[in-house]
Parts: sequence; C-alpha cells; structure tokens
Amino acid sequence: MTRRFASWWDVATATQNDDPWEDPTLYAFLCDEVQIGFIQPHVWAVLQRYAHAFVMDERRMTFGPACTSVDARTDAINALAMQLRDHGEFPEALGGWRHEQYAVYGRDKSQRTYMAFTLERAACALFGFATFGVHLTAYTPDGRIWVPKRSATKATWPGMYDNSVAGGITAGENVLDTIVRECEEEASLDPELVTAHIRAVGVISYFYKTPTHGYRQPEMQFLYDLCLPSNDVRLQPNDQEAQSFELMDRDTIWQLIVAGAFKPNCTLVLLDFFIRHGWLTPEKEPDYTKLVALLHTPLRVPTP
Amino acid sequence: MTRRFASWWDVATATQNDDPWEDPTLYAFLCDEVQIGFIQPHVWAVLQRYAHAFVMDERRMTFGPACTSVDARTDAINALAMQLRDHGEFPEALGGWRHEQYAVYGRDKSQRTYMAFTLERAACALFGFATFGVHLTAYTPDGRIWVPKRSATKATWPGMYDNSVAGGITAGENVLDTIVRECEEEASLDPELVTAHIRAVGVISYFYKTPTHGYRQPEMQFLYDLCLPSNDVRLQPNDQEAQSFELMDRDTIWQLIVAGAFKPNCTLVLLDFFIRHGWLTPEKEPDYTKLVALLHTPLRVPTP
Repeated sequence: MTRRFASWWDVATATQNDDPWEDPTLYAFLCDEVQIGFIQPHVWAVLQRYAHAFVMDERRMTFGPACTSVDARTDAINALAMQLRDHGEFPEALGGWRHEQYAVYGRDKSQRTYMAFTLERAACALFGFATFGVHLTAYTPDGRIWVPKRSATKATWPGMYDNSVAGGITAGENVLDTIVRECEEEASLDPELVTAHIRAVGVISYFYKTPTHGYRQPEMQFLYDLCLPSNDVRLQPNDQEAQSFELMDRDTIWQLIVAGAFKPNCTLVLLDFFIRHGWLTPEKEPDYTKLVALLHTPLRVPTP
Repeated sequence: MTRRFASWWDVATATQNDDPWEDPTLYAFLCDEVQIGFIQPHVWAVLQRYAHAFVMDERRMTFGPACTSVDARTDAINALAMQLRDHGEFPEALGGWRHEQYAVYGRDKSQRTYMAFTLERAACALFGFATFGVHLTAYTPDGRIWVPKRSATKATWPGMYDNSVAGGITAGENVLDTIVRECEEEASLDPELVTAHIRAVGVISYFYKTPTHGYRQPEMQFLYDLCLPSNDVRLQPNDQEAQSFELMDRDTIWQLIVAGAFKPNCTLVLLDFFIRHGWLTPEKEPDYTKLVALLHTPLRVPTP
C-alpha cells in the first residue's frame, strides 16, 4: 500500500485543513447579528438570484426582518434550499438530499446558545454551517478495534474505512440516543449491550474544506468508547452503510491511515482514541501537544 | 460546607480566568520576534531599572543582540531574576525561589518550536511565560479517586485538596520520568507499579491570572491516569507536599470542588477526567462542549 502521509501531523492537517475566519474571499451568514456560516463566492453569486426572502448586503447574508422565529427561519431557508435543488444548482451537494433536518445554532446578546433553525442536511455545506455528529470506537478487551468498510455504493467516501459506528445528529434527537440507534442500524449491536458498556469521552472540533468544491464545514463530533464485554461480540452490517467489519490491531489501522484508506475525519477520532488510551504519548509523538490542540480547534460559531 | 460555585462552568472559569492576548495593558516579551510572555505594567516599571542587558522599546522587551544562544539567553535572564530577588523586588514570587530551571520555548520562521532558554521557576510568573506540568489521577478499580490534602506549610495553596500526584516539568526532564518520580516522592508509589499501570491521556491548557498580584500564567498540563491494580494499594505522604491522602467517591469530590476546597487548576484536571470517563455527559451537563473547549484554550505561545 502506498504511503500517502508522513506523520500524524500530516494526517491530521488533511482534515483540519482550513480556517474560514482567516479567508477574506468568504461571505458571512449571520443570524441575529452573529456570524454562523461561511459562503464561497460562487455560491454567493447563485444565492443572489434566489434568496429574495433574505437580506444580502455587500458581504453578509441574513434572514429578512420578519423571520425571527425558529419556524419562520426554518421555512425560509428550507424553501431556498429546495428551490436551488429543483433548479439543479449545486447538484454535488443538493443531489444527495437526505430528508433529514440538522439543527443550526445562534447566540444571543448574553452569550447563550439557542437553536436558531433547522435545515436539510445536504444544504448545510452551501452555507458553511457547523454540523454535529457522533463517532464511536468499539474495541475488544484485548485492544483491537472494529473497523467497517463503507459500502461501495455510498455517495460519500465509498469503499473507505470508517469508525466503528458514526452518524449525524438530527435536530431534536439527543446525542446518546443517536449513537445507540446508529449502533443497531449500522453494526447490528444490541441497544441493551451498548447502553450497558458505552462511555461518553468528549468532543472534537475542526474545520474541513472539501477538496473538490471548497465547501467550508465546521464540524463537532461527540465521541464514545465502547469496550465490548468480550472478544466474541461481533459487529456486522445491518443497513447499507457498511459492506463489512474487520477487527484490527493498532498497527494495521495506522498502516491504513497513512495510506489514505480511511475517511479523513475518522482519522481525528482515532487520533483522539490513541491519545486517550496512551497508545500515542508525548515521548513517541513529537507533535503531541499540537495534535491535542488541533483536535479542539475553536470553531468560534455557536455550538450546542 | 459553603457552596462557592454554582456549576462546572463557574468552577472552570475560576481557573481559565484570563485572555492576556486581549489585554492592552500588558507588555510583551519576545524571543526572535515571537511573543512568548506577558508583563504587567507594575513589573515593567521595575524591569526598566534592572534589565540593562535587554532591549525594552515602547511596549516590547527582548534579549540584547548578543544573546542568541540558549546559554547566553539563560545566563542573561537568570542574572536579571537574581538581581531582582537580591534587591527584594517581587517577594511574593521571588521569595519562593526553587533552584529549579523551567524550559521556555520559542518558534522559528518555519513554525518549528525550540527551547529558547531556561529560567528559575519562581521568576516565570513575572514574565508571563508558559509553564508545563504533569497531573496524575490515581483511582481504584471500583472508581474512587485518591485525593491528597496539601501541607499546611506549603507556600502556595496550603491545606487545599490537590490531584493525586502533580508537579512541574524541569528543563531537560522527560514527561513520563517526571510523573513516575513525583509518584514516588509525593505519594510513596513504587515506580514499577506506576510504570506498569500508568496511561498518558492528553494535555489541557489554560490561562490563569493570579488573584492577588495579577500575574499571567499560560499553563499546559500533561495528564495521566493510573488505574491501581487493586482497591488495596494506598497512596501516602512521603515528602512534605501532602499531609494526608484520602480515597473519595465522585460526589464527595464534587462537593469539595463547589466549596472551593480544591486548588483551582486541579479542578480542570478532574473535569477532564470526569469527561473522559463518561461521568459527565452531554445529557447531564449543559455546558459540555464549551467545557471541553475551555480545557483546550489555545495558548498561542510556543509549547513543546
């Protein structure tokens, strides 16, 4: 297998590959005067033709003055997204319409975060809104990790290696419920077993810029460890997300990571796991403190 | 016991209580044109009378042009610190002279970090240099944590509760060696037992402003977990750091934290432990994502 990355720093900066706050070409999306999104110039140009219910000044886009409630904002921005989709704009994003609403957050004058509106998952990238997901690492008592291979027919990252279980958080669903549900749907894991052994272990955050279309994606992942009660519990495909699961030791995983065979953001979750489990130490890893910082890049947009 | 803090957010912001980068009253200490320290106005005024081997322009202090090597810089800044001490300046800091050199880091033009010089531990606060320590949480298989009470005669935070084992990192000592040594010195733990069971689990970083003298202290702590092999291993005082050790459940610890009975920065280490061990979850803690971010405040000065 060809080595694509030379170090953990190389691996990590392939996902944390952007600082949209420092990019003067981007346009801002605001809600109640707080910036919550980042829009590329080619998206801005198209939005100007469709976003009549919005206010677009020189470099900033926001809701029209009547759109002050969660429902009104949700209706307005989803109507805009559907119109773009129906006119065939941004097919690389809106072609993968999910019928799944993501929560987008705002911040009030007393710095309190609130849910500002919800938006179809596929449209969030156009506006550079922060999105939130769950990632779980399932491992055996003897320290091997369950790694799925994504289905060859998936729209995003087909055939690549992924974290044991992962998914986006739909508006209104709590984080623990999301991961327990995904464990059953993606990996055939019994909810009772998961609930008994799952452990919340923190969050990571990073900015990802998509390589082909330059969409800005501030992301936060809620992380879970699942130490299986024995080496014999097996993860296996259930829905169409994974084509297979394989139990791997850490060296095998590292070889697949440096070869670029993992979906990029999964490598950050594995990096966090390797650090928390003492597999990566200050003595072994010259970029240790920089890597921990990178896993917690401040998004500077409201998060739940 | 009186409740001093209302929430984890309250607790955490009592330690992460500063952003020196946003304080226009502070003067800068630079090395090779990179800012590495923060100096208060009253310290600056005194330094102007002593720092003849340094360059002090309107708001920036740096080494004289001949001071380009590690040794030359180390000699110059330690001579300055000794002169201040011998003239009775800043007794609240320099009165606690430790005869212990801390490493101070710089960053070169290719963003590589290097050790710029070393400085007596007690003098680092005057210049607001970042300092580095180790903190270990020792816990039993049944989930209780060993908590020492600091000696009543200690210069700093006498009689307060502390993390199981903690200490500063002396220049030239590696992180793991430091914590293994401290485990024996402070808690009578056998180095072989520690080496067999210790786990590196990450780093936290924060800015602390001392309440009485306003010293700016950017700090990074390397964290370790030590799950003891049985409930029977006991931590007990060895040197004069701790007067006693007590095995506490998490509720007792939380009561002592909200009562303000813990040394402030120890609460951040416990917070990180509670998050990594799933004791604090996104469902239980409304400020969960903000707290994780706070534990990883970007120092924006060079770190190892």
